[in-house]
Amino acid sequence: MAKTAITPTRAEDYPEWFQQVVRAADMAETSAVRGCIVIKPWGYRLWENMQRSLDDMFKATGHQNAYFPLFIPMSFLEKEAEHVEGFAKECAVVTHHRLEPDPDGGLRPAGKLEEPLIVRPTSETIIGATYSKWVQSYRDLPILINQWANVVRWEMRTRMFLRTAEFLWQEGHTVHATADEAVEETERMIDVYADFAENWMAMPVIVGSKTDSERFPGAVETLSIEAMMQDRKALQAGTSHFLGQNFSKAQEIKFQSETGDIQYAWTTSWGVSTRLVGALVMTHSDDDGLVLPPRLAPTQIVIQPIYKGDDQRGQILQYVNELRDQIAAQKYDNQPIRVEIDDRDIRGGEKKWYHVKRGVPIRLEVGPKDMAAGSVFVGRRDQPKSTGMDKAEFIAKVSDLLAQIQKGLFERALAMRNDNTVTIDNEADFRSFFTPANAKNPEIHGGFAKCHYASEADLAELLKELKVTPRCIPRGDNHPGKCFLTGKPADHYAIFAKSY
Amino acid sequence: MAKTAITPTRAEDYPEWFQQVVRAADMAETSAVRGCIVIKPWGYRLWENMQRSLDDMFKATGHQNAYFPLFIPMSFLEKEAEHVEGFAKECAVVTHHRLEPDPDGGLRPAGKLEEPLIVRPTSETIIGATYSKWVQSYRDLPILINQWANVVRWEMRTRMFLRTAEFLWQEGHTVHATADEAVEETERMIDVYADFAENWMAMPVIVGSKTDSERFPGAVETLSIEAMMQDRKALQAGTSHFLGQNFSKAQEIKFQSETGDIQYAWTTSWGVSTRLVGALVMTHSDDDGLVLPPRLAPTQIVIQPIYKGDDQRGQILQYVNELRDQIAAQKYDNQPIRVEIDDRDIRGGEKKWYHVKRGVPIRLEVGPKDMAAGSVFVGRRDQPKSTGMDKAEFIAKVSDLLAQIQKGLFERALAMRNDNTVTIDNEADFRSFFTPANAKNPEIHGGFAKCHYASEADLAELLKELKVTPRCIPRGDNHPGKCFLTGKPADHYAIFAKSY
Ligand SMILES: [Zn+2]
Ligand SMILES: [Zn+2]
Repeated sequence: MAKTAITPTRAEDYPEWFQQVVRAADMAETSAVRGCIVIKPWGYRLWENMQRSLDDMFKATGHQNAYFPLFIPMSFLEKEAEHVEGFAKECAVVTHHRLEPDPDGGLRPAGKLEEPLIVRPTSETIIGATYSKWVQSYRDLPILINQWANVVRWEMRTRMFLRTAEFLWQEGHTVHATADEAVEETERMIDVYADFAENWMAMPVIVGSKTDSERFPGAVETLSIEAMMQDRKALQAGTSHFLGQNFSKAQEIKFQSETGDIQYAWTTSWGVSTRLVGALVMTHSDDDGLVLPPRLAPTQIVIQPIYKGDDQRGQILQYVNELRDQIAAQKYDNQPIRVEIDDRDIRGGEKKWYHVKRGVPIRLEVGPKDMAAGSVFVGRRDQPKSTGMDKAEFIAKVSDLLAQIQKGLFERALAMRNDNTVTIDNEADFRSFFTPANAKNPEIHGGFAKCHYASEADLAELLKELKVTPRCIPRGDNHPGKCFLTGKPADHYAIFAKSY
Repeated sequence: MAKTAITPTRAEDYPEWFQQVVRAADMAETSAVRGCIVIKPWGYRLWENMQRSLDDMFKATGHQNAYFPLFIPMSFLEKEAEHVEGFAKECAVVTHHRLEPDPDGGLRPAGKLEEPLIVRPTSETIIGATYSKWVQSYRDLPILINQWANVVRWEMRTRMFLRTAEFLWQEGHTVHATADEAVEETERMIDVYADFAENWMAMPVIVGSKTDSERFPGAVETLSIEAMMQDRKALQAGTSHFLGQNFSKAQEIKFQSETGDIQYAWTTSWGVSTRLVGALVMTHSDDDGLVLPPRLAPTQIVIQPIYKGDDQRGQILQYVNELRDQIAAQKYDNQPIRVEIDDRDIRGGEKKWYHVKRGVPIRLEVGPKDMAAGSVFVGRRDQPKSTGMDKAEFIAKVSDLLAQIQKGLFERALAMRNDNTVTIDNEADFRSFFTPANAKNPEIHGGFAKCHYASEADLAELLKELKVTPRCIPRGDNHPGKCFLTGKPADHYAIFAKSY
């Protein structure tokens, strides 16, 4: 078996493989603060590319950005009992506003706050309180605002990008005069997320509604996009909530309608986070490290000049500089292609693996023979072998090549999902699907099971035993059937899976 | 006297005028959390434009972005006594990681942390601890990293954008193998800030070094850009610090040099914040509200269609849509011109003042007569009167017009600064310059005083009495002289001013 750049491999230990891919790609590392990570330049550039693409899509759908306080008064959470139940319990609580010297020569907290402040785990309450002042009349609606921010949820067991105490995200919070309009917004934004996941991240997703048990606390409906990772677990990559009038009633967001009566507004919220970086890593990477879809790759093409001595160096560098300029003059995805020369003074093999592990889509090697032949040696990150290619031909085709890689990654991930998605209509098959052959050291198993069900209560015990959850009720051609467990009539099926 | 859109005027009450301009432009408002503001869409878009321009400049000078934890362990600050002395005393201290129900039906902090965490007032210590792991060899240098982040410094007396408990900023932190390289970086970044201030914000600045008393704690040299606001006070708009080996010694940032010995690295840090938004407001705005320099204005041109009835409406809208497209096809500052139509159903006068108060550089009114004549009615925010103009001519000249406004704002601000900058060589003049005629309700007075001084200690009492500080020792043609107070020989002069 060929040696891989990442140890362990996916098959050997998927969770550890993931951490090693992140490390080998120099995307992030743990920090001195429990549960918080340092996002290093390569990981952050990926997030910046995601941010910029999403931000353009938010603006194109009529949204504006704003910024609300990091802190939430504790009393705001007291008012929102249901909200707190959901996720405000484990959070960072600020109780003092000063440090002063203690008798041992160290420091101690001083200046106790009258009311503790919570570092936002999400901004529903503080934004709601603000909106209640902004909204008076139907003329003030809709409010279509997004915030890019850091949030904190105290997590004891953390995993880089997937689950960290502090993470970066965006949260859209909108207010509408009618239920219809708010539902439309909820759908629009899950579609934006699905578009982004599939066409930028090359990650196929299933759009659907959350079941009663998995819905966001206080939401009337939660839509999500669910993706299958290479260990066949589901990852919820984005959510969009129709909050009905629940939050507007709690937060007194009322308006005078055109006919003069006072009504509660209809609100939505929607968000994605740096978790998407983890999802992208787990969707495409292989046992040699990170694999990046070209549309989001910080560097799309890297050129490795190969030479001996100063004479060759001068000639080769001139040749690759020209090549770089010619490639940069081409466009992919309506932008100049992001191409770089790596002329560091390190061994060729080391340099190659450096870029392989960082997932650069195309790697070009150019040595004296290539220069003489007017060719380039092309290594595609999504294919095992490198091939020689005429330089002019490469330049003419480079944009198509990137598009082909982008498409190929999506198709590969879609095939993986299709191969591991089954329809199940009885308990035995369900149990067998979700039970590893090796209980002590579970192999990659399971996947997405499409199963009709009548009531979540009937399934609770079985799901708990197998550590499976309903991921979503897929939108579209869903249809009635019989519950796979009880045989009772069921309105629809859902996707069941183990999940992140 | 003509009625102004903002009450009070600058002359009547400058600090209150500032708050009213921010409010009238819908840029920000106070929040339920003491000292924290809500940055509203119009204010945030301005900040986004600033961010994007600065970020491009940082990247063009070789920097990459990364993200470090929001929290800093208290022990990190204990190690940095000098650092703490400077600004970590008033800060937000996280002591608990859970909220639980209390007996009264409310919530209370629970899960006490073993070690309190500080919400970053700046990230020197956490970034330094990270760099000490990253830097081993001269091959790892330089490290050129910037972070965009929120920071918190507990402030009791806050003012929107200028001084708030939480604010948004960027902090560059770089590590170098030699002192020369670090000094060069320090200079390069203050030049980037000066370029941005003058050529994007249209705000003239003086580049110089801080005096001993005003230097960043722990820095060997602090460079700053200082701008004069319309109340003739100085505002420090950006700083760049050469930290020598002080921080690398405290944080053990060491490397093996090419010759094999272990050396401490040389570090720098530099930052600007949302304070720039406040500086921009105070530099250009007038008694009718915000005035925006075109390069940073979220909307550069707004078109107000004027019509009666549906027939006129259809024709006029078609006409202004074409006009909008023709303007958007023009470029200013290498980007398509940002032009919008305001077709809201509100009174024309209200609409006009809405955009005047928000500082849109050019306002076009187009009614049936303009349409018939093929003209537009042009209101420049930097001039009192509107004028009719041939439509084709306007489109041909629009880019120049924006450039002219940008240049005009800079020149007006520079003239204001020049008019209020004096050279002073004796105590009596110094006292008189910085003493208002009306002590009870001080009028706008003072400005920048260029004064030679030998020792800050000699001046301390006088400066304290007059509430004046040395702003900087201007770079460039500085020269020796005699201290204005003591007559002792002085190496150089400094700018003295009251300040924000
Ligand atoms: Zn149903
Ligand atoms: Zn000197």
